[in-house]
This record gives sequence, structure tokens and C-alpha cells, in this order.
Amino acid sequence: MEVYLLFSGGKDSSLAAFILKKLGYNVTLININFGVLDSYKLAEETAKILGFKFKVINLDLDILEKAINILIKYGYPGPAINYIHKNVLEILSDKYKILADGIRRDDKVPKLSYSEIQSLEMRKNIQYISPLLGFGYKTLRYLTNKYFIIEEIESGTKITSDYEAEIRALLKERDINPNNYFPKHKQTRIVGVKEWGV
Amino acid sequence: MEVYLLFSGGKDSSLAAFILKKLGYNVTLININFGVLDSYKLAEETAKILGFKFKVINLDLDILEKAINILIKYGYPGPAINYIHKNVLEILSDKYKILADGIRRDDKVPKLSYSEIQSLEMRKNIQYISPLLGFGYKTLRYLTNKYFIIEEIESGTKITSDYEAEIRALLKERDINPNNYFPKHKQTRIVGVKEWGV
Repeated sequence: MEVYLLFSGGKDSSLAAFILKKLGYNVTLININFGVLDSYKLAEETAKILGFKFKVINLDLDILEKAINILIKYGYPGPAINYIHKNVLEILSDKYKILADGIRRDDKVPKLSYSEIQSLEMRKNIQYISPLLGFGYKTLRYLTNKYFIIEEIESGTKITSDYEAEIRALLKERDINPNNYFPKHKQTRIVGVKEWGV
Repeated sequence: MEVYLLFSGGKDSSLAAFILKKLGYNVTLININFGVLDSYKLAEETAKILGFKFKVINLDLDILEKAINILIKYGYPGPAINYIHKNVLEILSDKYKILADGIRRDDKVPKLSYSEIQSLEMRKNIQYISPLLGFGYKTLRYLTNKYFIIEEIESGTKITSDYEAEIRALLKERDINPNNYFPKHKQTRIVGVKEWGV
């Protein structure tokens, strides 16, 4: 069974990929690109390290522009990130029958409500899987440290492969300082696999 | 790392056990017994089929009696099942550092709210994992049919290893018809493993 997993190259989506593989799925990692910059590079490199198929999906810049309006309206990134994620799932679900992401129990955004998930699955006749949704941060820290060699990235210092990267680039194009909207936080990338027994 | 998984012998907790094993945990399956009847037998048998360690934990009948009061008050099983599950997790978390269960995304009960999970983990300094929380019923049907040979049981026709079995028995002892409180539903047990590659 084919599953398409939204993948940023970070430790969570990498663990999600491994779990799906362990469950016997044929996993393709997907990174979303809005044409602002080649932000998929890091995810592509990580997919190679992990040994998964990788695909960039190019979506309309309009989604990112609307997200930026939302970001500016609210003043913090949550609603804008959610807006992008929901649009991405809506669009991908017209093409792929089983979608997955690396959303964790303790994530605030992006996150779909239970009704939104049900609506998506029923309207589009798809399956949506979040393999990490039942795992808390302590458990995930243990598992990702056990399996992966992780590099921490201070947000905004390197081009990561998440939605934030292209939002930041588009803000800069408009002479807006992204740090006014994104609080400093750590991002991660996988630089190696310690053990797994795949 | 040791994990203790609440286990009924059904397809969901069986799949949860397999996922945890695949993640490298040393899994012990646990069935709760309140001393009303030997309802752990089916879970014990299933644990053997799956090849996992199995343990019965005897808890105070008082919990079950309070649950029955709740059942009679509400007239439907949800709140009573939730009451038992929360008490079980509270008690086990004094003894075990990593607890898990087979709760699914589409389950209504038993289910802890996000705040209840956070509270449990922080107060008791434990990890609580629900490996199936990010999986919908279609995905779980596919996975459990792929891995397990499943037998369906009409509720109340056979002694299952879930909380319902002892509630039913205690109601009968009090000359109350359990079918007044439990709507007819299907339960499952695993009778064999098809493939897995463990």
C-alpha cells in the first residue's frame, strides 16, 4: 500500500516515515514548494540519508500569499501554518489515497480537529494517518535520539524544508522582518541513522 | 525500554503491541482484573499467540462497583468505562514508568483529554503512549486484517478480557440485565498472526 508522507527532514516526520515503513507501507516522502526558494533541498538530502523515495510537490504561490496575510493579521504564525497545512492536505487528497504527516500529540500547529479529519477523509474518500499523534514529547525525544543523529538548527539561520522557510523568504522580499512574527525556536534535521534494523 | 500495555486480546491492543515492539520496546501486556471472574483468560491466550509477555493486575473491586453506580446513573457505558480506564492508569503509573494502551483516533471511550494526559504524565513522571491515536478506522481495518486472523464476538456471548466483561458479571450478580446498559456491538479477538516478519 502506497502512503505519501509530508516530510520536512526533521526528526518527527523522519520517525513517522520509519513507523509507516515498519507497518509495511510503501512510503514516498513529499515536500511542498511554493516556488519562492529551493527549500526542499534539506528534506531531499534527509530522504536520501533515510533511504526513502522523495518527491517535491509544487503548489500555487497564492496559498503562501494568503497565509502571509493571515500571519500579519494575527501577529503569530499558528493560524497561517494551519491554513497552509489544511490546504496542502485538501489538494494532495485529490491525488493520493493515503496521506500522512508527522504531527505529534503535543503539537499545537499544524493540527486538524477531529471533525476536520473526518470531513477530509469522508469527502475525499482517503485515509489520513498521523503516526505520532499518540506519542508525547518525552517518548519522541527518546525514540528519535535512539534512532537518529540529529542536528539542531536555530530557526531562520539555515534554509529548512518546512512551511516557515518560504514564508520567511516571502516576508523578506516584502521588506518585513520574519523575526517579528516567528519566535526563536529550534528546528532539527537528521544527519544520520544510528540503528534501526531496517 | 520496558513498556506496559493495557491489553484486551482485541485487534487494536494487539496492533499497538506490535507497533511498540517494532519501535524496540520490551513490551509486557497487562490485563486488569477486579476479582469478579477470570476474564483475563482470553487476553492471556491471545498474548501467547502473539508471543508477548503477559501479566494480570488485580485491582480493588471498589473501582468496578463505583463504575457500576456511574453506569446506572448515566444509563450508557461511556462514563463508567472512562472512569475505570482513568483509575487504572492512575494506579499503574505509580508502578510503571511507561504505560500504553490501544485507544484509536475514532474511539469515544475510553479516552483521556489532552489535559488529563499531560496531568498524568507530569504528576506521575511517566510516559503514556497510545500508538493508534493517529490512525482512523479504515487504516486500522486494513492493518489488522493484513496482520491478524480475527474472530468477531457478539458482545456478551463470550467472556472477553475488557472492562465490560466484569461489569456485565457484576450486574448479573445484582439481577440487572447488562443488555439494558450495553448496546449490542462486535468485539474481536486475535486467533492467529498472518504475516508480520517479526
